[in-house]
Amino acid sequence: MNEKLIMVPGPTNVPERVMRAMTKPMISHRSSEFRRLYESIAENMRYLFQTEGDIYVLTASGTGGVECVVGNVVNPGDKIIVPVFGLFSERLKEAIVRRGGRPIITQTRWGAAPKADEIKEVVESEEDVKAIAIVYNETSTGVTVRDLPEIGRIADENDMLLIVDAVSILGGDDLPVDKWNIDICVSASQKCLACPPGLALFSISEKAWETIETVQRPFYFDIKTMRRFGERSETPFTPAIPLFYALDEALKMIREEGLKRRFSRHRICSEAFYEAIEALGLKIFPEEPVRSQTVITFRKPEKIDGVTLRSRMNKDYDVVISGGAGRIRDETLRIGCMGIISERETIITVNALENVLKDLGYETESSGVEAARRRLRDLE
Amino acid sequence: MNEKLIMVPGPTNVPERVMRAMTKPMISHRSSEFRRLYESIAENMRYLFQTEGDIYVLTASGTGGVECVVGNVVNPGDKIIVPVFGLFSERLKEAIVRRGGRPIITQTRWGAAPKADEIKEVVESEEDVKAIAIVYNETSTGVTVRDLPEIGRIADENDMLLIVDAVSILGGDDLPVDKWNIDICVSASQKCLACPPGLALFSISEKAWETIETVQRPFYFDIKTMRRFGERSETPFTPAIPLFYALDEALKMIREEGLKRRFSRHRICSEAFYEAIEALGLKIFPEEPVRSQTVITFRKPEKIDGVTLRSRMNKDYDVVISGGAGRIRDETLRIGCMGIISERETIITVNALENVLKDLGYETESSGVEAARRRLRDLE
Repeated sequence: MNEKLIMVPGPTNVPERVMRAMTKPMISHRSSEFRRLYESIAENMRYLFQTEGDIYVLTASGTGGVECVVGNVVNPGDKIIVPVFGLFSERLKEAIVRRGGRPIITQTRWGAAPKADEIKEVVESEEDVKAIAIVYNETSTGVTVRDLPEIGRIADENDMLLIVDAVSILGGDDLPVDKWNIDICVSASQKCLACPPGLALFSISEKAWETIETVQRPFYFDIKTMRRFGERSETPFTPAIPLFYALDEALKMIREEGLKRRFSRHRICSEAFYEAIEALGLKIFPEEPVRSQTVITFRKPEKIDGVTLRSRMNKDYDVVISGGAGRIRDETLRIGCMGIISERETIITVNALENVLKDLGYETESSGVEAARRRLRDLE
Repeated sequence: MNEKLIMVPGPTNVPERVMRAMTKPMISHRSSEFRRLYESIAENMRYLFQTEGDIYVLTASGTGGVECVVGNVVNPGDKIIVPVFGLFSERLKEAIVRRGGRPIITQTRWGAAPKADEIKEVVESEEDVKAIAIVYNETSTGVTVRDLPEIGRIADENDMLLIVDAVSILGGDDLPVDKWNIDICVSASQKCLACPPGLALFSISEKAWETIETVQRPFYFDIKTMRRFGERSETPFTPAIPLFYALDEALKMIREEGLKRRFSRHRICSEAFYEAIEALGLKIFPEEPVRSQTVITFRKPEKIDGVTLRSRMNKDYDVVISGGAGRIRDETLRIGCMGIISERETIITVNALENVLKDLGYETESSGVEAARRRLRDLE
């Protein structure tokens, strides 16, 4: 099997350094070696989340992290505002429903982002709302909620919790948890952190703890138990130790690069993708002001089958991109612009896309690779 | 850091072959490469579980697997019989309580095993019991429920589900899921399978599916969603891909060795431990007929501090064993006799224990190493 370039919106390519970390000797999770590992992760996670609050790592995928957070905040009957604008915000709503909560939904057209004004309206018209739960970056549509700081202010002023699903964005775009009044921020290892999948990461504010205390919590997912064990730098249950090693290494790489440079690298590579897509004559799916810099969603050419296109990119160029998700599954394609993303991955991917399009008889407007290269000059 | 011999009851030492498998190239979880990996795991898991039923792998620790299973079977108010005889059966009860279920408890002295007769009595005196949920191997006391086949018959005759927590025993002792009428059997990667931690494994019978259909299920832990994706050899959410690679390799090693030889190896090594412990003049914790062949629990010498003993074994001999768990935390010690356990690990561990005991001024009765060696002659 050739090593493929994995350009789906998670899991992403993992640097050799992080891969190698997984093969460190097995240790007991009740040992001083593990406690040192935990503390190193915790310190760099606070940097990543830009928080002085508590942070936790859970052995589960990102969706497991979302279910955990919901289970620790929502009691049956609780009213939670949930803006729905794609598949993953629908999933967030569904997790609340399964828990017995009552989601108050605002619907936004797929490709657009919910606005602070719309949320404010709902906040003012509904009583006893416990929290606003929102997806910051919709992995299905490639939309980032640019009003999030304003939504944080609304939550704060109205004494509601703000829960943010940042699975496909944390580490790839700015998300200062404390500054934006985010009470719970949940993410996952396999997206912008360039770490293998299997871990959910989240932060908890002081205000969130007050609510957690009053909830009939689940068991494996009990955040209060995590706090009790976390005080001595341990996890309540056996963690995925090789993945903890990998996360530790991935976080060290983030720290070495610095958040500012990292976000800028993601932004420039995403712009290179968007400009290449337009140069090829294809249509970007989301509206311009809310385009994500971590997930690139675009419409496939009308006369070309998306599955064929992806499979040719995979077979002929060893580049794996993703199909659409949810109700736009068949009409869109997605590229992950995450983690180690650099000039190399961007150009290889655009080149593969451009060549396969031509192979399949599509007439490109201009060179995607050239358009991408122009933008990539801005990289440090 | 020296590489330590990890002799705790999970995580265990992982063979080089399995460690290396984790560094295979990252793949998309929606690719044909992943589907082949899934199918290879599924085939060997059916062999391991001795079942023709459905099997699933979940990114979570063993306790996560237990919570998942409980959440898919128990509706609020449901009556579930739970024999309690150690820390992990208490946890199983707690998971049912958190779910809103009503556990009907049988209490057994720590160190003894619940009997089929006692369970039969409860089955006959209680109405509308939905399931019996039982820990097959109590990791805290080192007790295996030898009446499990009989308990399976009772569940079957009374049309109740049988849920078995086999976290610390599957792969180290016989557990024919179909033959013993086990409807749901849950285990974890980091114990007798000699695989790193982070995955829960479970089986589901036809009878269990009928119940699962009627339950208000959780989200990340929804087994019905797992079945829907499993039909096309995928997981609903991003799985811990490196751990799936490791599990695949670990299962191949189990298949190569064969279950019968593997169980016999665990049995002989456990007998070597028990005979060594008695030769040293120490007291084995569980009653003889129910002693586990995967977790060795014994009392520390009265005048020696358990923490000091373990820390000396670690520092002077690079052997890590475990303290007690739950209410016998301070008076007992535990050794994992799991996974790759062979003459080498057994002798190194007994030797370290014997020497540290002597260093701390304890007068051993006779040679533990010699006693272990005698028994280990039976190994193939």
